[in-house]
Amino acid sequence: MKLLKNQAGRLVPEKVNNQKQVPFKGVGNYKPKGNKAKPPIRSCADYPADGNKVVKNLKEALKKAGLKDGMTISTHHHLRNGDVVTNYLFDTIEEMGVKNIRWFPSASFPCHEHLIKYLDDGTIHHIEGSMNGPLGRYTTEGKMKGVGVLRSHGGRYQAIQDGEVKIDIAVIAAPTADPFGNATGDRGKSACGLLGFALADSEYADKVIIVTDNLIPFPCHPWQIQGNNVDYVVEIDSLGDPKKIVSGTTEVTKSPDRLLIAEYVAQFMEDSGIMKDGFSFQAGAGGTNLAFAVYLKERMKKKGIKARFIRGGSTKYLVEMLEEGLTDYILDGQTFDLEGVRSMRENPGHVNTSPFTSYNYHGKGNFASMVDAVVLGATEVDLNFNANVVTHSDGYLLHGIGGWQNCLFSKCTILAIPSFRDRIPVIVDEVTTLVGPGELIDVIVTERGIAINPKRKDLLKAVKSSSLPIRPIKEIYDEVVELCGVPKKPKANKNKVVAVIKWVDGTLLDSVFQIEK
Amino acid sequence: MKLLKNQAGRLVPEKVNNQKQVPFKGVGNYKPKGNKAKPPIRSCADYPADGNKVVKNLKEALKKAGLKDGMTISTHHHLRNGDVVTNYLFDTIEEMGVKNIRWFPSASFPCHEHLIKYLDDGTIHHIEGSMNGPLGRYTTEGKMKGVGVLRSHGGRYQAIQDGEVKIDIAVIAAPTADPFGNATGDRGKSACGLLGFALADSEYADKVIIVTDNLIPFPCHPWQIQGNNVDYVVEIDSLGDPKKIVSGTTEVTKSPDRLLIAEYVAQFMEDSGIMKDGFSFQAGAGGTNLAFAVYLKERMKKKGIKARFIRGGSTKYLVEMLEEGLTDYILDGQTFDLEGVRSMRENPGHVNTSPFTSYNYHGKGNFASMVDAVVLGATEVDLNFNANVVTHSDGYLLHGIGGWQNCLFSKCTILAIPSFRDRIPVIVDEVTTLVGPGELIDVIVTERGIAINPKRKDLLKAVKSSSLPIRPIKEIYDEVVELCGVPKKPKANKNKVVAVIKWVDGTLLDSVFQIEK
Repeated sequence: MKLLKNQAGRLVPEKVNNQKQVPFKGVGNYKPKGNKAKPPIRSCADYPADGNKVVKNLKEALKKAGLKDGMTISTHHHLRNGDVVTNYLFDTIEEMGVKNIRWFPSASFPCHEHLIKYLDDGTIHHIEGSMNGPLGRYTTEGKMKGVGVLRSHGGRYQAIQDGEVKIDIAVIAAPTADPFGNATGDRGKSACGLLGFALADSEYADKVIIVTDNLIPFPCHPWQIQGNNVDYVVEIDSLGDPKKIVSGTTEVTKSPDRLLIAEYVAQFMEDSGIMKDGFSFQAGAGGTNLAFAVYLKERMKKKGIKARFIRGGSTKYLVEMLEEGLTDYILDGQTFDLEGVRSMRENPGHVNTSPFTSYNYHGKGNFASMVDAVVLGATEVDLNFNANVVTHSDGYLLHGIGGWQNCLFSKCTILAIPSFRDRIPVIVDEVTTLVGPGELIDVIVTERGIAINPKRKDLLKAVKSSSLPIRPIKEIYDEVVELCGVPKKPKANKNKVVAVIKWVDGTLLDSVFQIEK
Repeated sequence: MKLLKNQAGRLVPEKVNNQKQVPFKGVGNYKPKGNKAKPPIRSCADYPADGNKVVKNLKEALKKAGLKDGMTISTHHHLRNGDVVTNYLFDTIEEMGVKNIRWFPSASFPCHEHLIKYLDDGTIHHIEGSMNGPLGRYTTEGKMKGVGVLRSHGGRYQAIQDGEVKIDIAVIAAPTADPFGNATGDRGKSACGLLGFALADSEYADKVIIVTDNLIPFPCHPWQIQGNNVDYVVEIDSLGDPKKIVSGTTEVTKSPDRLLIAEYVAQFMEDSGIMKDGFSFQAGAGGTNLAFAVYLKERMKKKGIKARFIRGGSTKYLVEMLEEGLTDYILDGQTFDLEGVRSMRENPGHVNTSPFTSYNYHGKGNFASMVDAVVLGATEVDLNFNANVVTHSDGYLLHGIGGWQNCLFSKCTILAIPSFRDRIPVIVDEVTTLVGPGELIDVIVTERGIAINPKRKDLLKAVKSSSLPIRPIKEIYDEVVELCGVPKKPKANKNKVVAVIKWVDGTLLDSVFQIEK
């Protein structure tokens, strides 16, 4: 495997799974040429006039779809850790004796540990998509036949749209659907909120199979997935465990350090002037982020300030803000709890978005760069503000990118992170894996103080008279090193790339190397 | 111009405006090959990060979009006869000195008579889209430089999707929009309801310009047109005359003959068993159709029957049915009056559809074939149940196809028509122009009785014991001929095709010939 050094100075392979790659050229420097993917033209003459596309079972649907060795099969991750459909899908594929599938999920979860046996026996050749937990460990140890490819949510849309990844069969689990294939995630016993991560799959895959446990008469509305893109519909008993699909309730952190970080972020938003009438922000669903939202809400109420929109992942905390009139809209990409699902179903101000609207870098703009501030996490941040969100300092690939890379285009990107975890520094000299270029990361908020990227002179000026502990990142780093020491670099086999990190434009940003146990 | 005889026995040109054509091969017999159109890949790096795509005026937007001679420019017709944007657009193009534009509207209206001077002076080369009223007259008399191409709403989507028509610049009038280009028709002083006819344009055109008279802060929601497909946004004072964009109120016919026809259709729906719980229907917004909806509603209430969905064009009559619980949904393609617009904006059961969902024949099915019964009009119907909706018996092209061809795929297609108009027979021996193949037309309802297509033995049986005046079509024809005589065939110049009629699959169904005055 020939490695090249890209513009960020990271080593990336020339080819991945026999596909030629473009090395990262710097943010905004790679200009795509050519045209979007072009799915085959279909004819209504080949589909049932009464709109009934229901077939007996998944096996029959896969047969009709022409499943064969080496195909690319996609799934979405809106069922999160409650998903049983993907495991059932590969049980079926294995039973049909089909091999060497490229599995192209929008993400994987610990529940997909079940699939390791299919990676072992050659049913699955490799995974393109996040490899959280057990699958990440498996991959890092060099056990997967092909090379893993990690993309952001927007990068996944881009790759499909641009024809980098051609999906042969998309299998879309749908909490509610009609026989024509219209499908929604916002209702049904397995409600998960949105199905937006499967949008590109439905638009571009050769064949599209809807799998539902709640088949209703046409029309299923909203049609988050449009039946006009669907070939077959399969009814099964259950898509999974509702309690693991969405949490009954999401809770803020109880850690005093994390609460302090959250309070710092909220104060930063106010002191920097970002929190003003008509502003917008995005925050994830981690405990610190939730605490931040609660603190920010208090500040907004106190000052009588209303947001124009909040980007979800939504939770009950954001829903409360919408219902209390503190924002005109929640623009939501996924719902994390039952309140989020309810609000999405009931409130016209709780708006469905997709990786196309929000994150696709190869569109005519997207929503991410319009957001005034985004609050994210990271596994590591280095002295150049480069950040990592997929590997730990031991080199293990344990997380996906999600929308994280896409969100970096916000007008102010804030990483809210502890300075160390379990005595392992989070502020490091150089990130193990580069996932976010430092030039896009503006503010690091830790329990030991706040570091602002020196490039953001405007932000430094805006908080000059703030009571916040603004400090150079090197100072925080030095403190952490004094406390924890410098962790040993992992024993990585630099001859074996086990996975690659794509940038939002499809270029190769970094590699993950095999870890030798 | 070489003419070929197609499967329906009609003469159609081998080439139209230098593009090779496929002659009609019979319903469902033409199987498209190849792939959909593939627009260029774009990059967010080339669009403003803050999402503000507003430019000074339309001229600047057209310049930036690279307007030049011979380009294809599209517009939509949701502003109906109140549209001033299209006229302003061509005033601007003429002022810029650009020539030979192919104008590709989703339809034209009498208000576009203004454009005749641009057809004369070579600004516009020819029109592909309906040529109602004055433009139709102009075309029929052989004055247009190119050949007109008439497509159904679904056929227009199909032609764009399949790459038959490549739009260089789409100019989309939008009653409400944000600076990013998200746009909706359901609100604003020029509210027109939907913007669905511009969906394909926004998805496939090289450049997309939004023109609005109500620019609001991001996000404009609903985003019937997605800003991610938009290049430039232009603000102007007014899109047109609101009273002509939607009528304040739509009214049922007062003609006793038409009321009788409407009552016959309603009774047919009941006696044939089509009107049953969970059924669906579509009816246009003409006076007879409105009367039919009123009569059907009475019958539904009397029998306690509820529809699953009604397809719009919506009017206050359909809105009442939705609000009174007589249907679960209105699946709407356009709104004809203010009540329709209000309902679409306020009622989650009043659902936006598009030519993609409803009518595109080159998709994986569409909604049209799932509708239990559709009630349509026609200018002529012949003894073989073939129908015409674009020309009159004098050979003049005066109407567009609209969704009419697409609707023929309904489970029961009913033409509700007077047997003659102004002493000109509507029931004829052979249609002047073939727009709807008789095999798809099931029932002809006139004031003199009801003719059922002999192919529909099931329908004939279903109404066997009905009190309705079911008669052979020949009997009605003979009566009409006795009353009105056989009208003279128009003096058509069979050497000069002025326009062609596309079938829903893009093949050529018939030609319109020059009429010599």
